[in-house]
Amino acid sequence: MKLRVKDIDTSSGGPLIAVMNQKDADLLDLHVMDRLKIKKRGKIDTVVLDVTQNSKIVPKGKIGVFEEVVNSLKLRNDDSVQISVARKPLSIDFIKNKLNGQRLSKKEIYQIVWDIVHNKLSSVELAYFVAACYTNVMSTEETILLTKAMVKHGDVLNLHKYPVIDKHSIGGIPGNRTSLVIIPIIAAAGYYIPKTSSRSITSPAGTADTMEVLANVTFPIKKMKEIVLKTKGCIVWGGSLNLAPADDKIIAVERPLEIDAESQLLASIMAKKYAVSSTHILIDIPINKDAKVRNRAEALRLKSEFKKIGKKLRKHVKVIITDGKQPIGNGIGPALEARDVLWLLKRDPRAPIDLEKKCLMMCAKLFTMIGIKNGYSKALEILNSGKAYTKMAEIIKAQGGKEIAPDKIKIGKFSFDVLSKKNGAVKWIDNIYISKIARIAGAPHDKGSGIYLHKHLGDKVRKGEKLFTIYSESRHEFEYAKDVAKNSKVFIIK
Amino acid sequence: MKLRVKDIDTSSGGPLIAVMNQKDADLLDLHVMDRLKIKKRGKIDTVVLDVTQNSKIVPKGKIGVFEEVVNSLKLRNDDSVQISVARKPLSIDFIKNKLNGQRLSKKEIYQIVWDIVHNKLSSVELAYFVAACYTNVMSTEETILLTKAMVKHGDVLNLHKYPVIDKHSIGGIPGNRTSLVIIPIIAAAGYYIPKTSSRSITSPAGTADTMEVLANVTFPIKKMKEIVLKTKGCIVWGGSLNLAPADDKIIAVERPLEIDAESQLLASIMAKKYAVSSTHILIDIPINKDAKVRNRAEALRLKSEFKKIGKKLRKHVKVIITDGKQPIGNGIGPALEARDVLWLLKRDPRAPIDLEKKCLMMCAKLFTMIGIKNGYSKALEILNSGKAYTKMAEIIKAQGGKEIAPDKIKIGKFSFDVLSKKNGAVKWIDNIYISKIARIAGAPHDKGSGIYLHKHLGDKVRKGEKLFTIYSESRHEFEYAKDVAKNSKVFIIK
Repeated sequence: MKLRVKDIDTSSGGPLIAVMNQKDADLLDLHVMDRLKIKKRGKIDTVVLDVTQNSKIVPKGKIGVFEEVVNSLKLRNDDSVQISVARKPLSIDFIKNKLNGQRLSKKEIYQIVWDIVHNKLSSVELAYFVAACYTNVMSTEETILLTKAMVKHGDVLNLHKYPVIDKHSIGGIPGNRTSLVIIPIIAAAGYYIPKTSSRSITSPAGTADTMEVLANVTFPIKKMKEIVLKTKGCIVWGGSLNLAPADDKIIAVERPLEIDAESQLLASIMAKKYAVSSTHILIDIPINKDAKVRNRAEALRLKSEFKKIGKKLRKHVKVIITDGKQPIGNGIGPALEARDVLWLLKRDPRAPIDLEKKCLMMCAKLFTMIGIKNGYSKALEILNSGKAYTKMAEIIKAQGGKEIAPDKIKIGKFSFDVLSKKNGAVKWIDNIYISKIARIAGAPHDKGSGIYLHKHLGDKVRKGEKLFTIYSESRHEFEYAKDVAKNSKVFIIK
Repeated sequence: MKLRVKDIDTSSGGPLIAVMNQKDADLLDLHVMDRLKIKKRGKIDTVVLDVTQNSKIVPKGKIGVFEEVVNSLKLRNDDSVQISVARKPLSIDFIKNKLNGQRLSKKEIYQIVWDIVHNKLSSVELAYFVAACYTNVMSTEETILLTKAMVKHGDVLNLHKYPVIDKHSIGGIPGNRTSLVIIPIIAAAGYYIPKTSSRSITSPAGTADTMEVLANVTFPIKKMKEIVLKTKGCIVWGGSLNLAPADDKIIAVERPLEIDAESQLLASIMAKKYAVSSTHILIDIPINKDAKVRNRAEALRLKSEFKKIGKKLRKHVKVIITDGKQPIGNGIGPALEARDVLWLLKRDPRAPIDLEKKCLMMCAKLFTMIGIKNGYSKALEILNSGKAYTKMAEIIKAQGGKEIAPDKIKIGKFSFDVLSKKNGAVKWIDNIYISKIARIAGAPHDKGSGIYLHKHLGDKVRKGEKLFTIYSESRHEFEYAKDVAKNSKVFIIK
């Protein structure tokens, strides 16, 4: 069948999609989400079909094409193209098998990941894959295959060094900006630590958002390699690299229901470490009933899976389970967190002691992993000597940033102090509300917005004393955040 | 936030969808598939968000709207609209609970169905619902609630008569056009039988496709009621009515993976019977390893579920398990099936005896259900006396059709006989290939295309004798169908 092109000026954000009029679709017995081959000047694309009955949108005789198809086949309006029926991707059958409770083979998992990376699956089909792995939990073997497949179908940073150190903290705890302290300490000690990190999805800041206050974080993989070879460390945004790209597409369809299939969580983390050729990986699992990992039993299960997968991938993996009951550090939001980090590296007395302790403990674990004794003292010595700060300044420069005094970091001009209504001690801090208020105030898109905590769990507090301060860059968001703070129980004082 | 409207001339086929530029979306911390309120002149719609980074598609400051939103809010290009963040539909949490293995409550099921009917869920979210019900099979109670909710959120045909008879054959068997014989027999006997039927999805013809050869099948519910009150029976297309509309939307997302969650199958059938106020329902479950129901164990399970649901809905339900090993009737494809039916009703010796026997048996069961003895003889008498044919002619007329002699029904002009290559008996007929070839020949969109069987299982056959004939309305499709027939094992003769 020959049809004429109508560029419908819409983007799918990935999958190749074309729209036919119902009448033409009926002729070829085609339905929504069937596959179609479009041929133009010898080049063929297989696209996902959408069907409309509305001739205003796509009349009979025409084929509406999304941006992705226009670009791929270099189409113009009214071009004549040849249409034929295509097989559905092989992975559709495999996904159905998984939904039926079957185990997936290596071939099947690689095919699914290939189809995901190459935008061959519609978002509905991808959702079935996620649902299948969520309800019929993948075996360790399947998760390992998924990890390897995600690495294979993406770019890889090959440093050809040993050891290559890495760390990952599972999310859900406000603040907790350990990477910005650990990376300069480890790099200053002379070890490679090529850290890729994420931007915030549902939190007030991701490591990449915070680092962006100090330097660029968006680099191609080649430039990342240059930075790491020069300074031994980096803190860049993983999303700008093409490491395990299947993962980002999977996360996108997990979002609507906020589900997180365990196998995907494991494969996602391990694939991104594997792809930058890390050899020694420390995983931090903070637990709290509101966090991603809710209790010790879940954490132990994950720990055991991480260990098994690490062993199979021939990586040294250590897992620590930490306390996620309250934010780590005082600043929540990119600029406030960046200021905390610089204070800490510059040995300013205003630095958050909880963040420092956690970072030193994690550095100690990493040093132990590579056979270095007295890691805690060593890390503390690097911090106290100013070597960690010097290294951070070097990394910031390598990533196109300028050295900045922590007190020069721009914090939102609107501020409001939330005061204690009574004397007592802090018994409870609500992580969910801390995040919510910081986000409403504008974090992470307004870097200077967020929350600064004056008290942590167990601290004594007098009536009228500051519990936390809300900062915001915009009057409108500020008022709204204040309102939410006034009407919710963020701290419990007893 | 105020944005200006850009009509992007695209239809979603249901859900209300709007597209924002990434930059605007970031300001409100919105992501793909989040919900958005659009306000215009006091009217508010909640829409599903899509996000683009391409300013050509939707620039900053604009909001791209799909047809459904344009129509609902009566928008024009460059209208200024007020945008705010909306909560996700309540049912998202319920779907997640079901995915986690929890049972759904009445309130939850009704909310999900309401959200489906009102296009509040994206297709990804709906896919999660289907996957959840597929992997964590619904209990009988949940299925009953789903049935009732689907009926409630749709139109209903209230005849205020008793009894109201109905029948349903579960699909997957080529031919098997029992409704077109049973409806006139039951109606001729003086009972109401308001039959709604489907069009083909993956088969060469649905009952609605075949009836459409003889009459119209697309009616509003008011007209359907008129027809039934006048003639006691009808054979109309369910898709044109608004009976249990949630069902069609669920089926649409089941299609990509060709999954069929048991609870949805049950609820789908029962809701459509319930919605036309049927009191006595006969369900035919043909089994065959290639059919929808693969074996006796599965059929018995379904039977027991149908009985339980019927009891709870206070409907008389009888379930028969029949042999689905071969096509029922000789014609496969709308016109060829319609001819079989008219031959049968007109007592033409060319009528297929297997179809006649099955229809008489089913009529006998229906008569027994309403307390009439000797149902088989009674049905046969109605058939032999010509009363069934007269009734069919009456229904055809009421549905806007004209009486036509069976031999005047237009059959595809291209035909090809497939001959036996040896002497023997028919040991096997491949239903899948019969359907495939009939569809490739053009059925159901070309009504005259399809297959005519000259032999059934067990029939003796000599070398060179006709096994089946392919008919097609188009040369191109004909050649392709012939090709497939020549290269596949459709009949096994031993």
